[in-house]
Amino acid sequence: MTRFASIEDLRSACNDLPGPDGDAAAAAAARQGVLTKPPGSLGRLEDAAIWLAGWQGGAVPKLDRVDVIVFAGSHGVTARGVSAFPAEVTAQMVGNFAAGGAAINQLARQADATLTVVPLDIDRPTADFTAAPAMDEADFLAAVGIGHDAVATDCNLLCLGEMGIGNTTAAAAIAAALFGGSGREWVGRGTGVDDAGLARKATVVDEAMALHGAALADPLEVLRRVGGRELAAIFGATLAARRMRIPVVLDGFVCTAAAAPLARLHPSGLGHAIAGHTSAEAGHARLLAALHLKPLLDLGMRLGEASGACLAVNVLRGALACHAGMATFAEAGVSDG
Amino acid sequence: MTRFASIEDLRSACNDLPGPDGDAAAAAAARQGVLTKPPGSLGRLEDAAIWLAGWQGGAVPKLDRVDVIVFAGSHGVTARGVSAFPAEVTAQMVGNFAAGGAAINQLARQADATLTVVPLDIDRPTADFTAAPAMDEADFLAAVGIGHDAVATDCNLLCLGEMGIGNTTAAAAIAAALFGGSGREWVGRGTGVDDAGLARKATVVDEAMALHGAALADPLEVLRRVGGRELAAIFGATLAARRMRIPVVLDGFVCTAAAAPLARLHPSGLGHAIAGHTSAEAGHARLLAALHLKPLLDLGMRLGEASGACLAVNVLRGALACHAGMATFAEAGVSDG
Repeated sequence: MTRFASIEDLRSACNDLPGPDGDAAAAAAARQGVLTKPPGSLGRLEDAAIWLAGWQGGAVPKLDRVDVIVFAGSHGVTARGVSAFPAEVTAQMVGNFAAGGAAINQLARQADATLTVVPLDIDRPTADFTAAPAMDEADFLAAVGIGHDAVATDCNLLCLGEMGIGNTTAAAAIAAALFGGSGREWVGRGTGVDDAGLARKATVVDEAMALHGAALADPLEVLRRVGGRELAAIFGATLAARRMRIPVVLDGFVCTAAAAPLARLHPSGLGHAIAGHTSAEAGHARLLAALHLKPLLDLGMRLGEASGACLAVNVLRGALACHAGMATFAEAGVSDG
Repeated sequence: MTRFASIEDLRSACNDLPGPDGDAAAAAAARQGVLTKPPGSLGRLEDAAIWLAGWQGGAVPKLDRVDVIVFAGSHGVTARGVSAFPAEVTAQMVGNFAAGGAAINQLARQADATLTVVPLDIDRPTADFTAAPAMDEADFLAAVGIGHDAVATDCNLLCLGEMGIGNTTAAAAIAAALFGGSGREWVGRGTGVDDAGLARKATVVDEAMALHGAALADPLEVLRRVGGRELAAIFGATLAARRMRIPVVLDGFVCTAAAAPLARLHPSGLGHAIAGHTSAEAGHARLLAALHLKPLLDLGMRLGEASGACLAVNVLRGALACHAGMATFAEAGVSDG
């Protein structure tokens, strides 16, 4: 029994999204204006505090429970030689997550966040999307539902990420389908392909656009046909968070591409999401620009695993620490200019 | 009894600086190459871990003790109407630091860093540097010595910052003296001056350049003549950290300007320093470029107080967590491509 009975059922959910609490955001903005600092001098920390307040619905938001969910999936398109690493690395890395040895294990601990890893049938790769849709409808809806159900109601902030050898090619295909442009404009080196691998990735994306054609006018069909299970799950988690007004931190190119269909289905579909960072993966900056998302960090990272999102949590914790803990001019007896 | 008996004594110390431990940096770089991630995929986190290793002299550096020192000083040049806030705010903010109500109190706690605030004769402003040198030699050397002596030998990482109404004008004057350009090219709105205030700041800088003239060919004279006590102390602390090979995180425009003379006195004078962020204050990006410093964060902050440096500590903690805690490909049984 999956959460969504049909594509149209899922589409209905995407069309009916709550907005932020304007009163809470206004109260947070007013508080920022009387704290002991020149107005605006904390820059994006001020914006972040107000954004958190709006989505959480309180003038002083909380970050007591920060969750990091990493979804993992296997991709049939790896048969096309689109990755510098063999496909079995996806399962090996899921083992590494479980053993605590991956980057995200360290970054989640450092950010005082709880990490959950959700593998999605990783012993059963999706179809090669240059030959057929990556997933049938049941498979797709199941993956979206797993992502949706992975979000805890009492989570204050959700970081999303992924692991899946081959998935930067899927992300490039999603971006091309949603925003136009050729494969070459969206592909990057992923885990480190050489020039020939990069050319193969571009060809694969172009072939997918040609094969799936007009069906790609529907953002949900884009995700089903050229995505992957972990991408569908990220989409489901992003949707679930929105329905519960939980703010979301997106990670890199793959994560952003997975969430992007929500912005195509609803004009403010990603209003509750922030870009944790801009990745070194070539298409990410372009995708963020298309989505009007301004990343918090720019550190040349391109690992995925929610690593960039998780690092950005520290910025949000700093923003909240100032917002909640600073004295006002009146409290501190400081002249306010 | 001050640490430096004369300007020439201080200059000698600036000429005799230790470099990083190349073996430790090489060992750290080798470790980065075998951790379970595509090579280079942690971007600047990898560079940061290697940089910390080199200066601390160990393949796996530590951040057990992170210190934040905020120096505060009062400026005679405030008489020229260069700030949006009255001069008494410097003392009021020192009180706010002591009471725990300022931004840096919250950010230091959030970064698990120890904050020390060092006021430097704040009831006795420096001279208006458009009329005379800001400090005489004894006053200048005393401030440098206080900064130098404020650095603890067992500190693993030092964040530097400042508080001083009027000091963005001093910073602009230092930058103009060290790197050329008119006042207009270096001044910014500081705490929030209007267009008339901005024009006054530019005029003040230009007048200072004309008054002090050829004496400004010496970077130490620049700091004494157009700086301020908290800037001299930041310089002293930056020097002390270098002599002890303690890595330093610089904050915004004022902090960077205060440290800049060390880069003019020694070709790798700021090799042990990283720019925590780029400030929204107009001259900072230009100054960072002149010093070949690439900031870690760019969040539109312009508060000072070491706020941007302290926020960057979280990035370094993330870098170290990955460097120290990740499994290698061999340990995790992950194929390394």
